[in-house]
Amino acid sequence: MAVSFSFRLIASNGAARTGEIATAHGIVRTPAFMPVGTQAAIKGVHHDEVRAAGADIILANTYHLMLRPTAERVAALGGLHEFMHWPLPILTDSGGYQVMSLAPLRKVAEPGVTFRSHLDGAMVELTPERAVEVQILLGADIAMQLDECVRLPAEPANIERAMRLSLRWAERCKRAFEGAPSDRALFGIVQGGDDARLREVSARALVELGFDGYAIGGLAVGEEVMLRVVATTAPALPAERPRYLMGVGTPSDVLDAIACGIDMFDCVLPTRNGRHGLAFTRFGPINIKNARHADDPRPLDPQSRCPAARDFSRAYLHHLFKANEALGGTLLSIVNLFYYQDLTAGARAAIAQCRFADYRAEIEEQWARDVE
Amino acid sequence: MAVSFSFRLIASNGAARTGEIATAHGIVRTPAFMPVGTQAAIKGVHHDEVRAAGADIILANTYHLMLRPTAERVAALGGLHEFMHWPLPILTDSGGYQVMSLAPLRKVAEPGVTFRSHLDGAMVELTPERAVEVQILLGADIAMQLDECVRLPAEPANIERAMRLSLRWAERCKRAFEGAPSDRALFGIVQGGDDARLREVSARALVELGFDGYAIGGLAVGEEVMLRVVATTAPALPAERPRYLMGVGTPSDVLDAIACGIDMFDCVLPTRNGRHGLAFTRFGPINIKNARHADDPRPLDPQSRCPAARDFSRAYLHHLFKANEALGGTLLSIVNLFYYQDLTAGARAAIAQCRFADYRAEIEEQWARDVE
Repeated sequence: MAVSFSFRLIASNGAARTGEIATAHGIVRTPAFMPVGTQAAIKGVHHDEVRAAGADIILANTYHLMLRPTAERVAALGGLHEFMHWPLPILTDSGGYQVMSLAPLRKVAEPGVTFRSHLDGAMVELTPERAVEVQILLGADIAMQLDECVRLPAEPANIERAMRLSLRWAERCKRAFEGAPSDRALFGIVQGGDDARLREVSARALVELGFDGYAIGGLAVGEEVMLRVVATTAPALPAERPRYLMGVGTPSDVLDAIACGIDMFDCVLPTRNGRHGLAFTRFGPINIKNARHADDPRPLDPQSRCPAARDFSRAYLHHLFKANEALGGTLLSIVNLFYYQDLTAGARAAIAQCRFADYRAEIEEQWARDVE
Repeated sequence: MAVSFSFRLIASNGAARTGEIATAHGIVRTPAFMPVGTQAAIKGVHHDEVRAAGADIILANTYHLMLRPTAERVAALGGLHEFMHWPLPILTDSGGYQVMSLAPLRKVAEPGVTFRSHLDGAMVELTPERAVEVQILLGADIAMQLDECVRLPAEPANIERAMRLSLRWAERCKRAFEGAPSDRALFGIVQGGDDARLREVSARALVELGFDGYAIGGLAVGEEVMLRVVATTAPALPAERPRYLMGVGTPSDVLDAIACGIDMFDCVLPTRNGRHGLAFTRFGPINIKNARHADDPRPLDPQSRCPAARDFSRAYLHHLFKANEALGGTLLSIVNLFYYQDLTAGARAAIAQCRFADYRAEIEEQWARDVE
């Protein structure tokens, strides 16, 4: 029998929590960081490295996959886990965010969003029902409701309109999800921009509808707004369900949000920054393209659990970037994926030991020390 | 005490041979295929995968490395093995071939070749002595003499001129190499274009000078000329030294040349073709970008030793290329590196069992069967 989706809280420390999400494809230890596999691949990194880094779950993008190779093709090939040969849990977003940010000629209306595919120019309609259908076809362990994500700053009236539309879509998604296999989960998404009152309205209404987990959307925007909204929204969400802060963030953002009670994160920063020569380390970020690394025989961090951070000198990594060798971006992406996994693993352990505040302070103190 | 360079013939089967080259950094089983790490990196592939494929030795390019990061910098960082974290043997070419093919404004004269760096436009002089010095600084286990490599087809007079110049450079390289650490080896390079008589003159003169091994250069040109020249040149080289056919070639070329008594190969085909979507398999080459793979759940080869050839469906690999995910090129490069290593490993075993002709026939029969 398939394992049902469930969330078990193991320990709390202030607002911070550690727990376990059970899915049909395995356990997700929280706080969890989900590497982003937009097109069913973590950019530039072999799946084996993603697993070695310690990721329990990855995120894939509905918008990209519904256009190519299409959800129907993935389903015919056995679903996303089989298709991409990733046996662990997968969360898919609903496509809403990417439609807003990538598709030309998008039009949002009550039935859903209509947009022109950036691949072949075809007009595509994404309704709440279709977003759910696509995610069921993909075989996601965790599916997200379709929402309208307003880019901040925005007019209060527009923020409220999008939030209320997202709530109506949430209800339609929930209804559409009733036919999903019983081991799948659907999360609602709190919207409401930077307005604490609207966020609370959204959170309450979603909780009333009842979801397997709750996300906070529209906050991949900048630290100050993000923290303020998360601090007020997280407590409005039920303690017995996982809370997912979408698209966030820097290591500092992640620690801040964990302190507010967030359980799940996704962000392209580890791989995007890695490709651009930026390594996250115990000593803070290191820009390996900087000329001062050209003769430096030291590894990024001799104490890292990540072989790429231990085995290769900064001089070699610098050379790979100067020489435009893709291996440079791959190695730094691996370093960064390990970094984020170790950051959240450390948080889990610290919360379980009731010393999360100390852990956070130690990490931040090391970043500030600038001993690199 | 450092291991001296040596070559031990284990078995012969017709002209084909299997043996072992001992170097300070380990054993190279021959026939050996050397993956190309032009800029101290195998393009798009993690070192761990190159080792997992079974490569005993890699090739790096003197021309690229002397310009960036420079031989002096690599030496200061402990040499190429330490710099790139590759503990196994390394062969470096002399830079001659790349100067001819890459550098603008090159001028060949008796003292050496002068060229403009393609990186910063600086005029650089590469003499036989400097080529040896650079390779000693890099720490190559096997260094190559500087030669002039004429692009075929060419005028007979020009072929002979370049061959005789290469011989004089061979002598100067040998003299310059006398100061090298005792565990390093220097190979001479037979030139002479497509002229069997000139090739023989070149081979005899080089053998008279005496090198640790002998390469046949200037033959990455097309199957027919290559085979004819190799078939007549290889027997002119001493049996007790390794023979290296530079820049060759396709799997078929490799088998043909092994049959003529060649021991070592290098070629960019596994990684270059991999990046372009071409996989070498038991069933012959597969162009994964072809639309007919889009729905194919089968792996490239379920019986392959290579995990990437077993674990990922053709449909997924096809998708990665369509979606411009670098992982596609990486996975196919890995598949191809395994393929070449398995091809030469099979040849070694077959020669030891005196059944190389059968092995070659079996491999070729499978390519022709087109059962993919």
